[in-house]
Amino acid sequence: MINIAVLGYGTVGSGVVEVLNTNGESIKKRAGEKINIKYILDLREFPGDPIMDKLVHDFNIILEDPEVKIIAEVMGGVEPAYTFVKKALLAGKSVCSSNKELVAKHGAELLDIAKESNSNFLFEASVGGGIPIIRPLNQSLTADEIEEITGILNGTTNYILSEMSEEGLDFDTALKDAQSKGYAERNPEADVEGYDACRKIAILSSLAFGMQVDFEDIYTEGITKITDVDIKYAKAMSARIKLFASSIKENDHFYSMVAPMMIKANHPLYSVNDVFNGIFVRGNVIGDVMFYGSGAGKLPTASAVVADIVDAAKHLGKNIWTIWSSKKLELSDINKAKNKFFIRIAGDGEAEKELINRLFGKVEEITVEDITGEYAFITSVMMEEELKEKKKLLPNVLSIIRVKF
Amino acid sequence: MINIAVLGYGTVGSGVVEVLNTNGESIKKRAGEKINIKYILDLREFPGDPIMDKLVHDFNIILEDPEVKIIAEVMGGVEPAYTFVKKALLAGKSVCSSNKELVAKHGAELLDIAKESNSNFLFEASVGGGIPIIRPLNQSLTADEIEEITGILNGTTNYILSEMSEEGLDFDTALKDAQSKGYAERNPEADVEGYDACRKIAILSSLAFGMQVDFEDIYTEGITKITDVDIKYAKAMSARIKLFASSIKENDHFYSMVAPMMIKANHPLYSVNDVFNGIFVRGNVIGDVMFYGSGAGKLPTASAVVADIVDAAKHLGKNIWTIWSSKKLELSDINKAKNKFFIRIAGDGEAEKELINRLFGKVEEITVEDITGEYAFITSVMMEEELKEKKKLLPNVLSIIRVKF
Repeated sequence: MINIAVLGYGTVGSGVVEVLNTNGESIKKRAGEKINIKYILDLREFPGDPIMDKLVHDFNIILEDPEVKIIAEVMGGVEPAYTFVKKALLAGKSVCSSNKELVAKHGAELLDIAKESNSNFLFEASVGGGIPIIRPLNQSLTADEIEEITGILNGTTNYILSEMSEEGLDFDTALKDAQSKGYAERNPEADVEGYDACRKIAILSSLAFGMQVDFEDIYTEGITKITDVDIKYAKAMSARIKLFASSIKENDHFYSMVAPMMIKANHPLYSVNDVFNGIFVRGNVIGDVMFYGSGAGKLPTASAVVADIVDAAKHLGKNIWTIWSSKKLELSDINKAKNKFFIRIAGDGEAEKELINRLFGKVEEITVEDITGEYAFITSVMMEEELKEKKKLLPNVLSIIRVKF
Repeated sequence: MINIAVLGYGTVGSGVVEVLNTNGESIKKRAGEKINIKYILDLREFPGDPIMDKLVHDFNIILEDPEVKIIAEVMGGVEPAYTFVKKALLAGKSVCSSNKELVAKHGAELLDIAKESNSNFLFEASVGGGIPIIRPLNQSLTADEIEEITGILNGTTNYILSEMSEEGLDFDTALKDAQSKGYAERNPEADVEGYDACRKIAILSSLAFGMQVDFEDIYTEGITKITDVDIKYAKAMSARIKLFASSIKENDHFYSMVAPMMIKANHPLYSVNDVFNGIFVRGNVIGDVMFYGSGAGKLPTASAVVADIVDAAKHLGKNIWTIWSSKKLELSDINKAKNKFFIRIAGDGEAEKELINRLFGKVEEITVEDITGEYAFITSVMMEEELKEKKKLLPNVLSIIRVKF
């Protein structure tokens, strides 16, 4: 029997308890021993809940109990999670975390401590919910040099964009719908501004490239400026708009960005709709692979945490090597990244034709039957900074979205 | 430095050499030590090839060299691969194999030997080429009870079906096209009759359910009976026909089958086209996940073999636990499995309407503008044995394809 503790009895924490109860027998077979929850840490009381007798309010009880070998940290937020996890790892306990803020901020340091203390710091649930992506990156794609990793990593924004596309809703209505269904928080900023996806791509990029990618360095745009008119154009082109979180290695340059992207059916992430997540990886020998599944939700996320617990149980006293050095990866200036752009301007375009031609050369005009009073086109590939300069000279810009086709 | 040997210098074997040369530096970082190829076993000579000085013709040289810790078995076929791998594992060497015939037939036994000798038998490349699926099943989906695992596991048949659909080709023409492109063998039987997919789903099912699934027990139908007319009907329904290899757990019953399946865009495997493979897994807590990538090819397959070598290097002297007991899993009678069926009969259907109504109750009629002289419909869900009985009473059946929508 292996004793564990769960830090935080919120959505994911109660999911972890449920998964261990529901699948206890098969998990025992996989781990080699029964996994027993000895403590659950939460500041709240849960009168009547069967976990009451495991509930503690003081982390030191867990830290000082040598019987506890593995800790599931499912509290979220940097503090006090960071302090708790660090102490646990220093004490030789393994930690399985679903906490993207913690991992993005302190992942490299915590991995180093785990290595020193022959324990493990695992965080499959911090990106992509239940989708196996952290372990495949660490252990399966090890023969490759990763050239690109691109994900639809935020279920809330993907749901909003899917609803806008399928139901013809505008952004505000789709957001309200997502909130009413519990897919978006009352304060949706972290999702719709791309901050959540930004932390997740920082984690994936650090693992893919083996060095610390600071999330603060990643250019991040959310989806709040996407309108139902943009979506209409996308549909007319058989395209979809997705919030892409992407890191690309070009020679020795690394570009990292979170931004809406127009893609067509030939892109592996095109069919990732609703609250689902998908992660696309391109390696120099494996070619393209893609991982798809529920990117959030109580049970899928708990499934990933418990899979980490099983892995930690199988590796007690033996560190699982991960390349994520604390050495900072200097991202290249995003202004030098190259993209095509979809641009809408007010007016019928006639007055600006000459200007557009001078700025962009030959462009692909996009027309949609019932949209009038504006002119839309797709540029050829150019650097972000070129686009910025040209945009200044372009009057009445309604919207600009990057294009990947 | 860790010394390895490669058994077989064919397509995959030369790919393994190429991957270790190309990505040697990053692989060293991942493995912790340089991976050095000490021997390559092949009966042939390769005059002028830089690997000549590593070439040996006698397996015993490799077996008896204590410096060789890891062996990549990329010969294919059951013998002599089985004898070599068994001896290597008994000698405490780890083996990484891309050999689906070997793994399907002797996987459980070889895993047991590896466990006894504190070595590892790894076989990521035996299913789905480069796609990480064996390791995710073993190590990532461990919190779940797997309810379904369904794959498009054979790139050749997927290419043929995609060509038939996209180019309107008939089966023979599409097969010849696949052969001319090197996607299909001159004797295409193993692919087009579903035998290859059958071995692969046997491996995945054994890992998913933890017991030996014998490939001989799996009901297997190939794609040779699929015609361009079937494809026309599928297209008219916005459906695609895919060769599904599938195992489903229903209560305590396990059904396993390889057969063509009609699916629509809401199925996660719908977008898996051309030579790509995809594997869909449904767990009782994680929900649906899907893995997608190149299912074959020299470098993708070699990438998976080398990733196994890296894993073996990180686990020298320590067995990685896998649940695949040699205890046989008794599959349930496939006649009791349930499906909907797409059925085409000759004639306009008028004469048979009453009979069809009596046999199948209400059916969904399918018409395609330029197809005449036949009648097509989709049944409601019924057992395979019911369909068989009804089919006997139905005159002039042109084709029957299972339907998943």
